[in-house]
Amino acid sequence: MKFYDCTIAPSPRRVRIFLAEKGIKIDTVQVDLLTAENLKPPYLGINPRGLVPSLVLDDGTCIDETLAICQYLEALHPEKPLLGTDAKSRAVIASRTLAMEWDGFLRAAEAFRNSNPGFAERGIPGLAGVPAIPALAERGLSGLRGFLNGLEVTLGKNEYIAGATFSLADITALCVVDFAGWSNVKPTDSHPNVQRWYRSVSSRPSAAA
Amino acid sequence: MKFYDCTIAPSPRRVRIFLAEKGIKIDTVQVDLLTAENLKPPYLGINPRGLVPSLVLDDGTCIDETLAICQYLEALHPEKPLLGTDAKSRAVIASRTLAMEWDGFLRAAEAFRNSNPGFAERGIPGLAGVPAIPALAERGLSGLRGFLNGLEVTLGKNEYIAGATFSLADITALCVVDFAGWSNVKPTDSHPNVQRWYRSVSSRPSAAA
Repeated sequence: MKFYDCTIAPSPRRVRIFLAEKGIKIDTVQVDLLTAENLKPPYLGINPRGLVPSLVLDDGTCIDETLAICQYLEALHPEKPLLGTDAKSRAVIASRTLAMEWDGFLRAAEAFRNSNPGFAERGIPGLAGVPAIPALAERGLSGLRGFLNGLEVTLGKNEYIAGATFSLADITALCVVDFAGWSNVKPTDSHPNVQRWYRSVSSRPSAAA
Repeated sequence: MKFYDCTIAPSPRRVRIFLAEKGIKIDTVQVDLLTAENLKPPYLGINPRGLVPSLVLDDGTCIDETLAICQYLEALHPEKPLLGTDAKSRAVIASRTLAMEWDGFLRAAEAFRNSNPGFAERGIPGLAGVPAIPALAERGLSGLRGFLNGLEVTLGKNEYIAGATFSLADITALCVVDFAGWSNVKPTDSHPNVQRWYRSVSSRPSAAA
């Protein structure tokens, strides 16, 4: 099994933190997103979507969505659980993780990719030749502010994103908040619970992964 | 447990097909997306993201991402399995299902919402006051054509999206293809395998759900 990673990218960082929380080490290959190595052979032969991260099994099967990668790793290494321990907690954590992706990660990517000259023709991850849309960068920024406000409500009720326990939903939200910082959207004084949670999750040793 | 549905919307249809494949009936409440019932109380109190579908458990817990809803239903009703039977098949089906969402559903929603006058201020599902971006409709259309080409490659190798077995990935792709049809993007003669698969999955009794 091989993990295709890119240390500067927000998305594979989620898998690195997940592995660090579990204390697992696996074979890792770096893919250079800056030179678009992910959009050319041989990587496209490994992952036709051109996305990073990928987890490639020994039989060549490519798993390339973070939640799916983490579900597979959790099945192999159940301790410590980061995806729930029964049907309900598993569904809540999956639901919250995906919400962090759609409401947070997508918006951060829209804001960054559609305003950064280096991505002028890479408006969508994994595809070449998609022109940036400046208005979408604005929509992304606005979405990120709404995302932080929503997070504040959630974290005013719960210690962590999906309840009382640290999970993949927190790992995802941490990576979103740091990614949003690339576009200068950051928690403010009106987000005291986000700030409390951010201090907590970003000071875990795994956050350095 | 209550399922919040909207019969005209592509996203909750996935859950309806999933339930029909398993032969399960659950309490269902219709939410009228046309009058934006999902963006007002009381629905926002049930699901603060304003999205449909939601599955609300008896203790009030709201699960609002389709994959998470289906994982919960599969845990309660394991037969027949639509999410895999071991760690690898589960990861592959989850990965393919999420790929159908990001590469297909998102593009179909971009194409439709950003070109339809009824959504002029609802450019993002679940949020009011987000203006449409015409260039994003174009990006969505182009993305959908690429999506069908990618599906053709996948279905030239496998009978179904995630391999030899019908799964939630097929349910998702079926709903994407029908949703793409709203924007007049359809499989053509250059997609014989998509057409073969589409005839097969859309003729299952569950497809009428």
